[in-house]
Amino acid sequence: MEKNKMAEWLSEGSVAIPKLLMNHYAELGLNEQEFMMILHIHVAIEGGNDFLTPEEMSKKMSISAAKCMEVLRKLLKEGFIGIEQKQDPSSMIAEFYTLQPLWYKLVSLLFDENKKHKQIEQEEEEA
Amino acid sequence: MEKNKMAEWLSEGSVAIPKLLMNHYAELGLNEQEFMMILHIHVAIEGGNDFLTPEEMSKKMSISAAKCMEVLRKLLKEGFIGIEQKQDPSSMIAEFYTLQPLWYKLVSLLFDENKKHKQIEQEEEEA
Amino acid sequence: MEKNKMAEWLSEGSVAIPKLLMNHYAELGLNEQEFMMILHIHVAIEGGNDFLTPEEMSKKMSISAAKCMEVLRKLLKEGFIGIEQKQDPSSMIAEFYTLQPLWYKLVSLLFDENKKHKQIEQEEEEA
Amino acid sequence: MEKNKMAEWLSEGSVAIPKLLMNHYAELGLNEQEFMMILHIHVAIEGGNDFLTPEEMSKKMSISAAKCMEVLRKLLKEGFIGIEQKQDPSSMIAEFYTLQPLWYKLVSLLFDENKKHKQIEQEEEEA
Repeated sequence: MEKNKMAEWLSEGSVAIPKLLMNHYAELGLNEQEFMMILHIHVAIEGGNDFLTPEEMSKKMSISAAKCMEVLRKLLKEGFIGIEQKQDPSSMIAEFYTLQPLWYKLVSLLFDENKKHKQIEQEEEEA
Repeated sequence: MEKNKMAEWLSEGSVAIPKLLMNHYAELGLNEQEFMMILHIHVAIEGGNDFLTPEEMSKKMSISAAKCMEVLRKLLKEGFIGIEQKQDPSSMIAEFYTLQPLWYKLVSLLFDENKKHKQIEQEEEEA
Repeated sequence: MEKNKMAEWLSEGSVAIPKLLMNHYAELGLNEQEFMMILHIHVAIEGGNDFLTPEEMSKKMSISAAKCMEVLRKLLKEGFIGIEQKQDPSSMIAEFYTLQPLWYKLVSLLFDENKKHKQIEQEEEEA
Repeated sequence: MEKNKMAEWLSEGSVAIPKLLMNHYAELGLNEQEFMMILHIHVAIEGGNDFLTPEEMSKKMSISAAKCMEVLRKLLKEGFIGIEQKQDPSSMIAEFYTLQPLWYKLVSLLFDENKKHKQIEQEEEEA
């Protein structure tokens, strides 16, 4: 019966991406491949998988696991994503990705643009 | 520093609600209080908490835990949400909420409306 | 053919609601009926209809147009939504709803909570 | 005052992308650059601009307007997006993009996978 299938598809849900990020990722220095990798990491984190492997990424992307690893390294090196550690219930140390650095970069960009606008307005008033 | 706080807020993210559900919940027989409870359950499930208690609901809603319990019972009885069981890693049996029944009701409603429209069109063509 | 219908449903899309708002609307003084009205106004604005009438609201909600009008008045009076004016292309004056006051209230609440937390931490350090 | 600025940022909202699409775009034959262009078109349509130009795209992407034009042509040729016509209020003919072909491709893929699964199950039962 199709209805069950349809219900299952609807229940999959959607991921929400702030329009501010959609409009400014290129300005932050990300290309489309890098940005999509960040979105896949974001979806995985929200779904409870906070350490997506390059192999898992590769299955959802148009690039190989080796290329995923390369992009991932660049994102870590340039400070768009971070790796942190936590102790899981069985007291093992587990690593997880955090996108906090990305959000911080976005906020900084917005603040700077805001400041620049204000400065220009002020200079125009004084002129 | 404000930037850190702002970044933290942005990273909280959003919940996505299908417009089909926004437009048809009342037709399905839900009032606003019932629908909001379903949304809170939905957000909790996506965040990894799949058995939100009436006390937890009450903290985010404008109603008491007792009233939450009453609404919850109605939603279960009328088949908008379901309770299922799973075995967790420590092999304990845990209960969790599922919104699959809601999605099934929505799909059924859409199918019926679709069928009705087609029938009306056909009758008009034949007239 | 069902595929066309399903493609149409998928294309309807979803509305994204910040989790911060989901978690704090009750604290802001909104009940579920009031919050859902705000969401309907939000969806309408995003879809290009920025002055949803009580009749239109009533079709998507479980309450009458008269009751919608009553809730709407309360939301306007308590400063959750605003009405502004613009000149449309034919140079007529048109009114439209804005949710800017709601966002401002939310940000203010978050700032205050943040400040309170900091103060408590400081007092504890000094104690 | 920062609060106003932050309220404005929050009010920008988010775009919701079905997880089904996030998980299957590569399978549909799209690479990350192509998929992001589709997302930008989607955001623009939802915001009332249904014929985003390559110049507008280029401002939000990491590629030039000429490259945008090239990717756009490929998406049109391979049937991921469509162009339709409508008469605007001043009775001029205006062109607009539609993502209906993309949704149809996605549904077809899901149906086929579903059918394949069922077939395998059936064969296993018969074996």
